[in-house]
Amino acid sequence: MYNFSFYNPVKIIFGKNTISKLSKEIPKNSKIMIIYGGGSIKKNGVYQQVIDALSGIEFVEFAGIEANPHYETCLKCVEKIKAKNVDFLLAVGGGSVIDAVKFIAAATFFENDPWKIMNEEANIKKALPFGSILTLPATASEMNKGAVITKAATHEKLAFHSDKVYPKFSILDPTTTFTLPKIQIANGIIDTFVHVTEQYLTTCENAKIQDYFAESILKVLIEEGLKVFDDLENYDIRANLMWASTWGLNGWIAQGQSEDWSTHMIGHELTAIHGIDHAQTLAIILPGVMEIMKNDKKEKIIQMGKNVFGIIEKDDETFIKKTISAVDNFFQSLGIATHLSDYNVPDETIEIIVKRLKDRNWILGEKQNITPEVVKEILKIRK
Amino acid sequence: MYNFSFYNPVKIIFGKNTISKLSKEIPKNSKIMIIYGGGSIKKNGVYQQVIDALSGIEFVEFAGIEANPHYETCLKCVEKIKAKNVDFLLAVGGGSVIDAVKFIAAATFFENDPWKIMNEEANIKKALPFGSILTLPATASEMNKGAVITKAATHEKLAFHSDKVYPKFSILDPTTTFTLPKIQIANGIIDTFVHVTEQYLTTCENAKIQDYFAESILKVLIEEGLKVFDDLENYDIRANLMWASTWGLNGWIAQGQSEDWSTHMIGHELTAIHGIDHAQTLAIILPGVMEIMKNDKKEKIIQMGKNVFGIIEKDDETFIKKTISAVDNFFQSLGIATHLSDYNVPDETIEIIVKRLKDRNWILGEKQNITPEVVKEILKIRK
Repeated sequence: MYNFSFYNPVKIIFGKNTISKLSKEIPKNSKIMIIYGGGSIKKNGVYQQVIDALSGIEFVEFAGIEANPHYETCLKCVEKIKAKNVDFLLAVGGGSVIDAVKFIAAATFFENDPWKIMNEEANIKKALPFGSILTLPATASEMNKGAVITKAATHEKLAFHSDKVYPKFSILDPTTTFTLPKIQIANGIIDTFVHVTEQYLTTCENAKIQDYFAESILKVLIEEGLKVFDDLENYDIRANLMWASTWGLNGWIAQGQSEDWSTHMIGHELTAIHGIDHAQTLAIILPGVMEIMKNDKKEKIIQMGKNVFGIIEKDDETFIKKTISAVDNFFQSLGIATHLSDYNVPDETIEIIVKRLKDRNWILGEKQNITPEVVKEILKIRK
Repeated sequence: MYNFSFYNPVKIIFGKNTISKLSKEIPKNSKIMIIYGGGSIKKNGVYQQVIDALSGIEFVEFAGIEANPHYETCLKCVEKIKAKNVDFLLAVGGGSVIDAVKFIAAATFFENDPWKIMNEEANIKKALPFGSILTLPATASEMNKGAVITKAATHEKLAFHSDKVYPKFSILDPTTTFTLPKIQIANGIIDTFVHVTEQYLTTCENAKIQDYFAESILKVLIEEGLKVFDDLENYDIRANLMWASTWGLNGWIAQGQSEDWSTHMIGHELTAIHGIDHAQTLAIILPGVMEIMKNDKKEKIIQMGKNVFGIIEKDDETFIKKTISAVDNFFQSLGIATHLSDYNVPDETIEIIVKRLKDRNWILGEKQNITPEVVKEILKIRK
């Protein structure tokens, strides 16, 4: 196990009818801004629950956070915050809204060009306090300190992390997920699955708690993911999926481990070029990374096959093959296609991505050996 | 899954040579008090590492915290804190020292009779900030908000919990555990094992993340516990055991679940009457609770047998029997005897304990159905 130093102070309020407890979590006499996205929260009743819970408390609103939240939109929100003397933010939505609120919270007090927040070296000294009400389990933004923001003007999509942007609290009511479209449920499961594998399918550091917790999350995703579509309003299934997605990226399973993140980095390019959903790109790429990097990841792939999928096989090569197939089949069983051709991605895209990575001098993977040429191999076997 | 509301803000600094990072974690210009126990930290070098790490920082010391920390000793420490204007505490030791420091931290600002802190309804408004350096993995006090304190004058042993007594940080260096006596290693493993079962071997709430995490911790304790005595300075084994013990009672696996704690409550009486080590009493009692409560705990015992011990058995009765034997055998394999006769406990003790519980009107267990008469049955089968 590697040395580590970590804390995660986010208060989780989990369960049925928990939005009603909202007002107790907000400091008295706060001037609140509710920040949300396109308005699905008005259709599914969550908006009304929030308004009811805030009865008697002063608030303003900011709507229109995009699916990949725009820097430009966030800056408009910051202006309104300053104009209205807001001192507590409330994110209501999925990862995009919570990510946007993290950026907004930091930008409100940032004295320099706000885009510099996206530079990991930026010294974020202070951020507005905020809470979140999660309606789409996937990113774990509700219990971590990271956010991804897109500058629409330049098509730059960058991440930042700061201890100052941990939510003060996050309310997770699984019933708010009952009305999610099936594609979003599937995407959320795959997003979480690949968050876990990026922190687990790496080198063997003999960090057993972390490994077994990671396997626990993967098992829950598989067991509940295979049942959720047959029983959309089953509370326990939704609760397990929601809690699993938070643990997929709240930081704890990564401690003392090496991390990969190559599937995400390659996938981001497919989203940038073809607009393919983030989770769909992960479903395409992960089996490719496992196949091409199977010598480096051999021990962990076999461990995953055994502990997550219950595969028993004497021959390592066969063991690995079966494990990769099991991952691929699981994604497909959720209704998500796993090959580039399924999304009509032309062969030329592979060269475009390789060139982009070369231009940025990017080398990926936990061993820093996934060069652009290796990425080409990964993409070629996922045609 | 039950609703829950929880956070755990403790910063964990884990790994080799991490005590050297101590000074960065303490607020500047603090007047520190180092609080420790009998002096084992002077023999194993931890004391010197702490002193070296505090080079240039002002501190005073308080030594002599007992194994089951005394209220009276804690009050002496509070007096010294006030006299010396100490504003940051540093617990160096195992769970007893950290528990004592939690009480001391709260008592320093408590305006009423300090023993009232042990009343869970006490309103602890403020506590001195403190950090811990853990040298004995067992209680998870390094990452929770609970403490157990004994009033020597009246032989009362009570627990309290408060969000105000979460450590600001805890430093866990597995190498500090290399020199622990074997009995303390075994006791720590069993203590952690039973912390987990108290939060897991209860009703089936279909809280899968929590269940699988609990099973993960148990598996690590078994796998590493069976190896540790053959390889006392194996860093990875010690790191896994240390991290497992923190997760056994840092609060997360209990969320959304029902809890039992009857094994602990019955065991406390054996410690009180015969001075048997806490973990030894747990090793005696747990198999008894599993046997006598097997109808209530049936589903979870079978789940544990399958997922933790890899037992496969068609007949439920046999499945349960084999699982209980596996637990009993594991404790014995650590060199800890599991029957009352092994500790020369006379039959009369059983009646004494039953009478004590009756006098207190105590009914135990997650279903509140372990009456004093049921406790008698549990004790009788552990003769």
